[in-house]
Amino acid sequence: MQCDRLWTGARLATLSGPGLAVVERGVVAARDGRIVYAGPADGAPGFQTRETIDCEGRWITPGLIDCHTHLVHGGDRAHEFELRLAGASYEEIARAGGGIVSTMRATRHASEAELVASALPRLDALIAEGASTVEIKSGYGLDLETELRMLRAARRLGEIRPVRIVTTFLGAHALPPEFEGRPDGYIDHVCRTMIPAVAAAGLADAVDCFCEGIGFTPEQTGRVFAAATAHGLRVKLHAEQLSNRGGAALAARHGALSADHLEYLDAEGIDAMARAGTIATLLPGAFYFVRETKLPPVQALREAGVPIALATDCNPGTSPLTSLLLTMNMAATLFRLTIEECLTGVTRNAARALGIEAETGSLEAGKSCDLAIWDIERPAELVYRMGFNPLHSRVWKDQ
Amino acid sequence: MQCDRLWTGARLATLSGPGLAVVERGVVAARDGRIVYAGPADGAPGFQTRETIDCEGRWITPGLIDCHTHLVHGGDRAHEFELRLAGASYEEIARAGGGIVSTMRATRHASEAELVASALPRLDALIAEGASTVEIKSGYGLDLETELRMLRAARRLGEIRPVRIVTTFLGAHALPPEFEGRPDGYIDHVCRTMIPAVAAAGLADAVDCFCEGIGFTPEQTGRVFAAATAHGLRVKLHAEQLSNRGGAALAARHGALSADHLEYLDAEGIDAMARAGTIATLLPGAFYFVRETKLPPVQALREAGVPIALATDCNPGTSPLTSLLLTMNMAATLFRLTIEECLTGVTRNAARALGIEAETGSLEAGKSCDLAIWDIERPAELVYRMGFNPLHSRVWKDQ
Ligand SMILES: [Zn+2]
Ligand SMILES: [Zn+2]
Repeated sequence: MQCDRLWTGARLATLSGPGLAVVERGVVAARDGRIVYAGPADGAPGFQTRETIDCEGRWITPGLIDCHTHLVHGGDRAHEFELRLAGASYEEIARAGGGIVSTMRATRHASEAELVASALPRLDALIAEGASTVEIKSGYGLDLETELRMLRAARRLGEIRPVRIVTTFLGAHALPPEFEGRPDGYIDHVCRTMIPAVAAAGLADAVDCFCEGIGFTPEQTGRVFAAATAHGLRVKLHAEQLSNRGGAALAARHGALSADHLEYLDAEGIDAMARAGTIATLLPGAFYFVRETKLPPVQALREAGVPIALATDCNPGTSPLTSLLLTMNMAATLFRLTIEECLTGVTRNAARALGIEAETGSLEAGKSCDLAIWDIERPAELVYRMGFNPLHSRVWKDQ
Repeated sequence: MQCDRLWTGARLATLSGPGLAVVERGVVAARDGRIVYAGPADGAPGFQTRETIDCEGRWITPGLIDCHTHLVHGGDRAHEFELRLAGASYEEIARAGGGIVSTMRATRHASEAELVASALPRLDALIAEGASTVEIKSGYGLDLETELRMLRAARRLGEIRPVRIVTTFLGAHALPPEFEGRPDGYIDHVCRTMIPAVAAAGLADAVDCFCEGIGFTPEQTGRVFAAATAHGLRVKLHAEQLSNRGGAALAARHGALSADHLEYLDAEGIDAMARAGTIATLLPGAFYFVRETKLPPVQALREAGVPIALATDCNPGTSPLTSLLLTMNMAATLFRLTIEECLTGVTRNAARALGIEAETGSLEAGKSCDLAIWDIERPAELVYRMGFNPLHSRVWKDQ
């Protein structure tokens, strides 16, 4: 078999299912940036290769996938965090210009180049730990021009770094001040102007919405979903983070790729997600950072067979987190996910949450050659340690 | 003023007290690895320097100090973590060879070179985030030969990396199998054989003990402290982690440098620590990893004026943590420490917890030139982010 590169002497967690699908003595072969073989050395075809890399017993997993981030934004909220720790009330912080509106203002004032430059160190932190795919949402512009600029900045990141960027339009993230008291008017604007423009520009791979007491109602969310679907875009949802609004079930009815957060998810929502094949994306960084105490219904999700993905939710207000390794540790420590669930959550299931499972998320012939090569003795080490990066090297397509 | 190196264009958090002691337009000058000036550029003396480094507005803090680690040990406990998440009971894990005894066995079987090699990546992770001083305890040998080997390995780490290593003898960490049912016999051995040998070899800077229901009694701890004091060694204590045994008060009576953990610390212990000047070292990584719910009495410590230090407690069983930045985030998020308390906790107060405050822990003339230079806009960013390292560069003495 002809190939460009061949990795030998590796232990593989192929994630081809079920579970980690471990191969103790494995090889991976790639041609033109695609895997042509990933499996046991014994019984592998003969390879003609231009380059052979001896992995010396290291582990190879699929490149990691961060399937829910707000990586592109202006400013940060470190000072707000400082004020809060010093005892400031939410009102005082709002008066000091804090909250999501402060991020909106900073984002509106930032050029595309500035958005790219400020997001790069965060993206680089993810890449340094083996990420090969990162989803990035808009949602801090809340006007058409800035939302488009955020999405262009996100796409640009994928041109200047060897990483796959998946973009999500989240115009319905919060109510902009221009529409104060007129949420339905803003949703009209999102549906009639913003989604058509985003779709026409080809800048979004999906549409997301924040369905919550402090966000938008299920009815408004449904309208956003209908507009997205009419423009050929898949949907996903911030659902059941602070209360149970039936968002997950609504998302499932619209064939959503994923429903995300889900601390307050109920049995009906789980049932709807299971039937629709909607992925449950858990965001333990936000749970930790806002000191949430209500745990997502992990056992019920398991029993219903709803696949679980994990993501950083990287955002300046509630999860300034840029580590998928730490995300896994939090999911294990705080949510009691198993090692297998954690690793599946940032690979195979994260790919499904983005609708790109045919392209990446496991080591299988035909998929993109997205590899993370680790200096570890067992996969559990990727979850167990805190603040330690055992990545040896990373491969993305043919780079 | 004559100097070797001059850092200009910097913002300083000198930590010279009180608080961060910020200098907005600062310079630092060093000669022979010692700070000769750290303060405002305006009013600074004229410098003749061999080298000038323009910091371009970056922040300089003292090099960080991790004042409580178990960095040197054989093996890891990732598999035990995996089994626990998969639902194994403590009995099943013990039968599978888990727990502290497994680390003791792996450590006893490791050569000094192997202990050094396995600890190096952990030490390098700390250094990569700006650590300039790391305390390392023995306590996984539980026999004289291995305890001495651990301490030699710790000292060796300080020879092969540009970092100050402070060593602590923790023979009374757990009861070794050889003394099963005879804890007083083991304490006799610690006091009469091990402490004298460690002191004679000059391998320890202090003596520590684990005072707990599953460790040693206050009476046994007192005997260890008396032996340490008789051999000219300062003491510190693992106290009040799982229950209140009066360990902190006992430590204070023995003039301890620090009492560490302290979730179950009571008013009497706080009062004794305040009077003795004993530092309260909080270990939020262990709190997080073992899902403790009892918070240390932070407000009472503040009111009593007990200085608070923070450390990773890096150890394979209850805190596989190698990040002081994440430690600060956990202290803020979980314990509600302020930004100032967090930064003081890993610099000035950590130095006091090691008895080396005359040498390091703040940017002051006469101290070692231990600098961490950061790509940040404000110190709060060092605490706010999770899984992100904004270190620009690090200076340790003249390296
Ligand atoms: Zn989000
Ligand atoms: Zn400890």
